[in-house]
Amino acid sequence: MKEDVKVCFYPYEKDVVVKRGENLLRAALEAGVHINASCGGEGHCGKCRVLIKSGEAECRECKKLTPQEIEVGYRQACRTTILSDLEVFIPPESQLDKSALERKKGTQSSGRHISSQILEKLVSGARFNPALWKHFLEIEPPSTQDNTSDLSRLLLLLKRQHNIENVSVDFLVLKKLSQILRQAEWKVTVTLVQTRVESQLGEYQLRGSRRPKLINVEPGNTVDTHYSVVLDIGTTTLWGQLIDLTNGATLAESSEYNPQVSYGDDVITRIVYSQKKGGLKKLQELVVTAINRIINDLLKKSGKDRRFISHLTAAGNTVMTHILLGLNPKYIRESPYTPVANFIPPVRAIRLGVEVEDFVYLYTFPSVASYVGGDIVSGILGSGVYQRKDLTLYIDIGTNGEIVLGNADWLLTASCSAGPAFEGGGVKFGMRATDGAIEGFDIHPTTFEPMILTIGMVKPKGICGSGIISIIAELLEAGVISPNGKFNVELNIPRIRKGSDGFEYVLAWKEETQIEEDITITEADIDNVMRAKAAMFAGCHSLLEKANLKVSDLSQIVIAGAFGDYIDLEKAIIIGLLPELPLEKFLFVGNGSLLGAKLISLSNEMLDDGERIARKMTNVELSEDRSFMEKYIAALFLPHTNAELFSKTIQRMKAFKNASRAGTGGKK
Amino acid sequence: MKEDVKVCFYPYEKDVVVKRGENLLRAALEAGVHINASCGGEGHCGKCRVLIKSGEAECRECKKLTPQEIEVGYRQACRTTILSDLEVFIPPESQLDKSALERKKGTQSSGRHISSQILEKLVSGARFNPALWKHFLEIEPPSTQDNTSDLSRLLLLLKRQHNIENVSVDFLVLKKLSQILRQAEWKVTVTLVQTRVESQLGEYQLRGSRRPKLINVEPGNTVDTHYSVVLDIGTTTLWGQLIDLTNGATLAESSEYNPQVSYGDDVITRIVYSQKKGGLKKLQELVVTAINRIINDLLKKSGKDRRFISHLTAAGNTVMTHILLGLNPKYIRESPYTPVANFIPPVRAIRLGVEVEDFVYLYTFPSVASYVGGDIVSGILGSGVYQRKDLTLYIDIGTNGEIVLGNADWLLTASCSAGPAFEGGGVKFGMRATDGAIEGFDIHPTTFEPMILTIGMVKPKGICGSGIISIIAELLEAGVISPNGKFNVELNIPRIRKGSDGFEYVLAWKEETQIEEDITITEADIDNVMRAKAAMFAGCHSLLEKANLKVSDLSQIVIAGAFGDYIDLEKAIIIGLLPELPLEKFLFVGNGSLLGAKLISLSNEMLDDGERIARKMTNVELSEDRSFMEKYIAALFLPHTNAELFSKTIQRMKAFKNASRAGTGGKK
Repeated sequence: MKEDVKVCFYPYEKDVVVKRGENLLRAALEAGVHINASCGGEGHCGKCRVLIKSGEAECRECKKLTPQEIEVGYRQACRTTILSDLEVFIPPESQLDKSALERKKGTQSSGRHISSQILEKLVSGARFNPALWKHFLEIEPPSTQDNTSDLSRLLLLLKRQHNIENVSVDFLVLKKLSQILRQAEWKVTVTLVQTRVESQLGEYQLRGSRRPKLINVEPGNTVDTHYSVVLDIGTTTLWGQLIDLTNGATLAESSEYNPQVSYGDDVITRIVYSQKKGGLKKLQELVVTAINRIINDLLKKSGKDRRFISHLTAAGNTVMTHILLGLNPKYIRESPYTPVANFIPPVRAIRLGVEVEDFVYLYTFPSVASYVGGDIVSGILGSGVYQRKDLTLYIDIGTNGEIVLGNADWLLTASCSAGPAFEGGGVKFGMRATDGAIEGFDIHPTTFEPMILTIGMVKPKGICGSGIISIIAELLEAGVISPNGKFNVELNIPRIRKGSDGFEYVLAWKEETQIEEDITITEADIDNVMRAKAAMFAGCHSLLEKANLKVSDLSQIVIAGAFGDYIDLEKAIIIGLLPELPLEKFLFVGNGSLLGAKLISLSNEMLDDGERIARKMTNVELSEDRSFMEKYIAALFLPHTNAELFSKTIQRMKAFKNASRAGTGGKK
Repeated sequence: MKEDVKVCFYPYEKDVVVKRGENLLRAALEAGVHINASCGGEGHCGKCRVLIKSGEAECRECKKLTPQEIEVGYRQACRTTILSDLEVFIPPESQLDKSALERKKGTQSSGRHISSQILEKLVSGARFNPALWKHFLEIEPPSTQDNTSDLSRLLLLLKRQHNIENVSVDFLVLKKLSQILRQAEWKVTVTLVQTRVESQLGEYQLRGSRRPKLINVEPGNTVDTHYSVVLDIGTTTLWGQLIDLTNGATLAESSEYNPQVSYGDDVITRIVYSQKKGGLKKLQELVVTAINRIINDLLKKSGKDRRFISHLTAAGNTVMTHILLGLNPKYIRESPYTPVANFIPPVRAIRLGVEVEDFVYLYTFPSVASYVGGDIVSGILGSGVYQRKDLTLYIDIGTNGEIVLGNADWLLTASCSAGPAFEGGGVKFGMRATDGAIEGFDIHPTTFEPMILTIGMVKPKGICGSGIISIIAELLEAGVISPNGKFNVELNIPRIRKGSDGFEYVLAWKEETQIEEDITITEADIDNVMRAKAAMFAGCHSLLEKANLKVSDLSQIVIAGAFGDYIDLEKAIIIGLLPELPLEKFLFVGNGSLLGAKLISLSNEMLDDGERIARKMTNVELSEDRSFMEKYIAALFLPHTNAELFSKTIQRMKAFKNASRAGTGGKK
């Protein structure tokens, strides 16, 4: 664990605590300290120069500085690694005037980022008890006196040594059993899985009665090598982890673009494509290909052997799950929007084309409805929401925004087709959260010059979801755009101009980018984001209304999505995506879907809980709800037409605007 | 049901009751009345002429008679159908003298042939309760108010209307569910199967706890069309029946040679072949091909549609079962003779290459040991032996002779590799029981001329198993062979001669056959049969000895095998194949294996009973048992070296021999 270090920025005297090794520009962004920076962090623009007054910092390739400048302590913030507590002086060209500073002081660093390690503790009762396990058996060879079948011999020892009986057997085991027993001189390792035998307690009182099934026999003792692959099948991105089933450790993680993206950005366009001749098969092959690449990468990273993977679990939305399994998603798209099934039996993975041993089954998380999928069930499981007495609002901000409201007693859920804006879709320069995507943004309140930070700190290529939220919030606060999302053209600055899609703000000039054109954010982009955030916000309020509750009744707001790892909470509130609540009530769970998939791999009880959650969730269909539509229209404003809902935010913005005006006046 | 008619043969005044429509030559053979006949019943030799004194009989194509002869009442017995009670006079050339007649009077007509229809009543508790059944459902289409998944909608109705819950679902159903529901306007028929969920009562107290599984959905109402195919996978012959699962009726029956025969007559040679490269696959393909032909034939005969077959059950010996499923039988052949498994999970039939719908599973009867297979378990089930308080000896006379001794409390079983003699193998002119096979044989005690009757009443082509037993018994009784199986060459008749395989008796001269060579029975043939019957007999006695019981303790002897339908009991006792017991103690069950396979298709309880039987049976390994070897050697004699075991038979033979000698003297 890296130690914490404190960085103090002058003249603002603003502190931020970061990990040793953090990038200085990033630390400034986190502290709410503006430093001009337009190359995304690659070091080419040279605008982000700062003066290190005390402390240790390493600067690599600060090419825009002379040796003399370096000598006296100047550094390019974007190329500088923090090695100890620092005092940093922001040079005049990057400095904000006092009034702007006031506003900046108001910001807090964003909510609680909680790593998976800690998050697992959110869920109680997750005893380490995987559904799959191994036993090493030294079997007495047959004799004339005792020549029962090879299988009986094995099962009898399993009963005697481990008290495991009533075992069913996968037919494929029989195909190789005799040969392996003899080759291994009767010393073998068996893999067992607990298969479900529901007791008849009705839908809501599922009890985890199980029956062991023998699924594999290996020569020798391999009990210490036993793995599971857990997958999150996102519309845009796939995530996978290799899990050690003997101790629950995560051995490797990997992700891949969902290659189906070429056939449509969202689930609706995927469904449309699936109805073309060969379309479903094509989409299924694409996602399986990506899963295979993820598995290859996991094995490469961990140095493990494919034949010891015994299990796959996957969480995905209903459409992604249907397509992965080759089930026709046609009727998900047609009113009244019915999936084929929400609970899907485990499927032999090689039959889908997944490159694992033939005995490996894929378990997919159950869904709730056409637009409330296994990924949400998985997230509710992983975040422990279903175990809490107090009220949680769970928000998964993705192409298809999904919301859950509830506690240990009840769970309401809804989906609101937010559109792909938060994943970079429907945005002119939108892109996935990979290298070159603008994720951090700050605007100088009087010069309106940007401070941009990209993922990988390279020249910008585009804007990712969290970047878009930051940009719109900053533009709004700085008065560059109005609450209706239109540009304030009166500002008369070169960065605001009329482009092919209406007015736009230039985030980075052509020569500062990787793509040889100006990167801008347009009014059309802002309009798309407003629609997306309005849908999410209206969805949350609709669910609250159904339950006769108010925002103030919420004890906790859980934000999920790989996206949720990077989102700036305060900025999300400013644009009205999230309700105005104290930041400490927000909790990021990152990829809840992947976490849930991992939990069910490691715990039989969690597997039961997952299904229990799916059965318990009540889906609220918003698409044809009038009250939802009204709420949606009311939310098509930044932050909202009803100022009462964002009173503090609006108040602060007003104060800032006045101060800015004053500042501008004072400056000139 | 055809009415009974009585036929009285003169001058012997011997009656026999047969069904109206029976063939007259066959009736004579059953009555023990010798009529010369050497063309097998085809009407060409003309030797079997008889005079009808009263009653109605139809003669078709009696070409060897003149119109005048027909006018006065002569008929060729082999071409004559009995239409009423008859009085028939045997002409002098076929007549036996008085002494021979005495002997013939001693014969009884053979045991009880019991049709499957009646036999089913042998088993109690076989409630008609198939593991598979259908329900027609009229499902309410989804609406915005109720848009649960298609599957949930279906399962909910199943619960409401039929109180069926806790249903698992075959993944393949999901692949077509949505489409079918809509095409059929939500009126569909579902097929369910009860899958086994053993309760934990240990091996011997299996309880039939089950869970329904949804395996198929069809458009419209098809509850009245629901079929099962039941199969007996014999080493030599395959039998199949198409069963109506709605009422238990047998809709068609079919059989096929097991094409594996080309790769070896018995299971051992098949195992040897299976170890060659590609051998196992080849053998598996062959038997599946034959199964497919049987299914085609069943569908053709019944006019039914393949897609309504929902289920396959098969009984076969352990090796046949292994090969059918593609399991390596290698270690069955190597001491200590262990199969891969005795209890084999149901297998999706198309994966074996069986041409049925993809949702159809094949259930194979459990085996007991390497040489005591599912066919025996099936036979014990079908014959109800396992339910009786009194003691039964169950004998399956096939290539691999199998014996079971026991009652409702215990079952001992053993296999004694009898060899293929009783199925026509290892016999120079041996053949399967099909058209042209000599099945009936009688010898004139003084002229030693044969009376032969073939299956299909056509010119002979060879000898089937039951024919061989009759021939050897007759030759022994007539003194043509000695108790050691050697020919009595002193008789000096043209039908006894030295052939390429030692001495032989000519059953049919070249011109009377279909094969353009003399059909004979040789000393080598007789030697093979003696070995086979000695193995069976020694096996029976070994089992009795293990249980500390005697032949006289037996209440019943059940004889199984398709072969068992035709065997002449008395002749089987004469050669020492069966123990000397009153004929009424013998019971033929025909193809017990096929019957058992049918019972489990029709009754869940029988399915449980089948597995219970397999678990209950104690296998006695005879191959390395010294006492068995001693008994085997003692039985290599006709009927046996220990005359006490066959005292009545030997006494009668002596009396006959004396009478024959006297007769011969008297005649000349």
